[in-house]
Amino acid sequence: MAKETVHVIEVGPRDGLQNEKRAWSPAERIELCLRLSQTGLKTLEVGAFVSPKWVPQMVGSETVLAETIKLRSQKKIPETTRISVLVPNLQGATDAMASSPDELAFFTAATEGFSKKNSNCTIDESLERFNMAITRFSKIPRRIYISTCFYCPYDGKTPPALVIDVVEKLLPMGFREFSIGDTIGAATPRDVKTLLEDLKSVLPLKSVAMHFHDTRGTAIANIYESLNMGIRSFDSSIGGLGGCPYAPGATGNVATEDVVYILESEGFSTGVKLEELFETNQWISGVIGQALPSRVGKARLPKGFS
Amino acid sequence: MAKETVHVIEVGPRDGLQNEKRAWSPAERIELCLRLSQTGLKTLEVGAFVSPKWVPQMVGSETVLAETIKLRSQKKIPETTRISVLVPNLQGATDAMASSPDELAFFTAATEGFSKKNSNCTIDESLERFNMAITRFSKIPRRIYISTCFYCPYDGKTPPALVIDVVEKLLPMGFREFSIGDTIGAATPRDVKTLLEDLKSVLPLKSVAMHFHDTRGTAIANIYESLNMGIRSFDSSIGGLGGCPYAPGATGNVATEDVVYILESEGFSTGVKLEELFETNQWISGVIGQALPSRVGKARLPKGFS
Repeated sequence: MAKETVHVIEVGPRDGLQNEKRAWSPAERIELCLRLSQTGLKTLEVGAFVSPKWVPQMVGSETVLAETIKLRSQKKIPETTRISVLVPNLQGATDAMASSPDELAFFTAATEGFSKKNSNCTIDESLERFNMAITRFSKIPRRIYISTCFYCPYDGKTPPALVIDVVEKLLPMGFREFSIGDTIGAATPRDVKTLLEDLKSVLPLKSVAMHFHDTRGTAIANIYESLNMGIRSFDSSIGGLGGCPYAPGATGNVATEDVVYILESEGFSTGVKLEELFETNQWISGVIGQALPSRVGKARLPKGFS
Repeated sequence: MAKETVHVIEVGPRDGLQNEKRAWSPAERIELCLRLSQTGLKTLEVGAFVSPKWVPQMVGSETVLAETIKLRSQKKIPETTRISVLVPNLQGATDAMASSPDELAFFTAATEGFSKKNSNCTIDESLERFNMAITRFSKIPRRIYISTCFYCPYDGKTPPALVIDVVEKLLPMGFREFSIGDTIGAATPRDVKTLLEDLKSVLPLKSVAMHFHDTRGTAIANIYESLNMGIRSFDSSIGGLGGCPYAPGATGNVATEDVVYILESEGFSTGVKLEELFETNQWISGVIGQALPSRVGKARLPKGFS
């Protein structure tokens, strides 16, 4: 029987690197994207068109985007690779559109406390900000990140109704994909099940990607439960980039290697070659001068793994 | 509705410490056991009566056992705490019995490759070794560790039939509990489900404890699937002691904090106080001079956790 496909969305060059202390140069980021594209990963979020004041790590994203698009036209990056960028508003979208990405990713939150602290606006205001971009660039596929869908560092545990509320406001805006974030990595499978049961009444689950952080070691269990619920798309970051294992309260994205390992073990097809991920992991370790958090990246495959 | 109880078996003072580079003194190990007993953990494996040549970290286990038993008689350790020790054979059991532990834990493996390398004997020979101890001390409750139930570092993936084989040989020996080990931390939930479905035809699942290592980040997902299958006992090690996060291929036990966090989140009662575990984690970090691998131990509880 043919294996069912699961889509792994690589956010390392954006969500990973924006949480690294040292800002990577555009040249380093382009090389990272090129290497990632060789592993079989089908979607890369290559940068963010956000304020250099708040996120200096993303300075030069216009170069990274333009160059990865160019590498793809030269067939150095596979033609099937989707190249996406994060934008907060009309200005960011306009800048990004100059290089014709395949997708724009916007962001909001399920909780007012996080929206205020992270974006300095209410949830409704964040929607207005990017609604102008959507109106202007209505043809380009778009994705929406919803942060703090399970726990908020300011407001505590997130009632699923808050997530449903914001999803319902977003529905008319025509997003191809909703990325449901456990921003502080605190959810467990029961939370995932509860939320997805509510969510599927307003949104087809094929439009949902789950976005877990492995802060409390529950990300892989949450991915497993999401699979049980019918989810087939997951965000992850190569090596768990951006979550330094040496810092207390490390808050990295779940590592791509760990995600691909469990997906392939559970009988799904990701199209991603683990050995190639390990090589990229090694290369990144060299660049940052320390090992990455990914557990599978460290331990590699067991004898007899197939 | 009353919450269902799940039993967390603390193996840090034995399985954790025997994998630490520096051998802890008996005095340090006694203090660790005393501190662990204050957290609500009901079973402590306090040491191992094994060859000092092979496991120098366990030297002085007779002192640790005698002192923890004494502390309990003085009510400094709760009277309800079960105190267990690991023994390989009649000699070890005889030495341990001098201090009257509550339980003797024996060990074998599901794969010949591991048995040979770890115990320098066949599986059948390992059974003969401890069968003499069982005959001699037939009244004391006993537990059996079965290593490499999912993957063997030498033989590759373990067919469930091998686990069933050894369980069937062990059944007449009257073990109270079978600890099913994922020794190299490579299993995923599908493996857990497959094995437990086979296992329950030969063994009541209430006699099974699952023993996961978090080498590839799948331990919590495996615990979650074990819960789904009806398992209510898990081995773990405070802080993930014994699995250095700085070494490639770290192979620690799953961390007690991470296990208690998911169990309590999923609606089970462990009787263990997470804040007390954090204090013990801090104390251990001070002793070893570095942070422990436990993710929940680092990140602590999210706001709104209950």
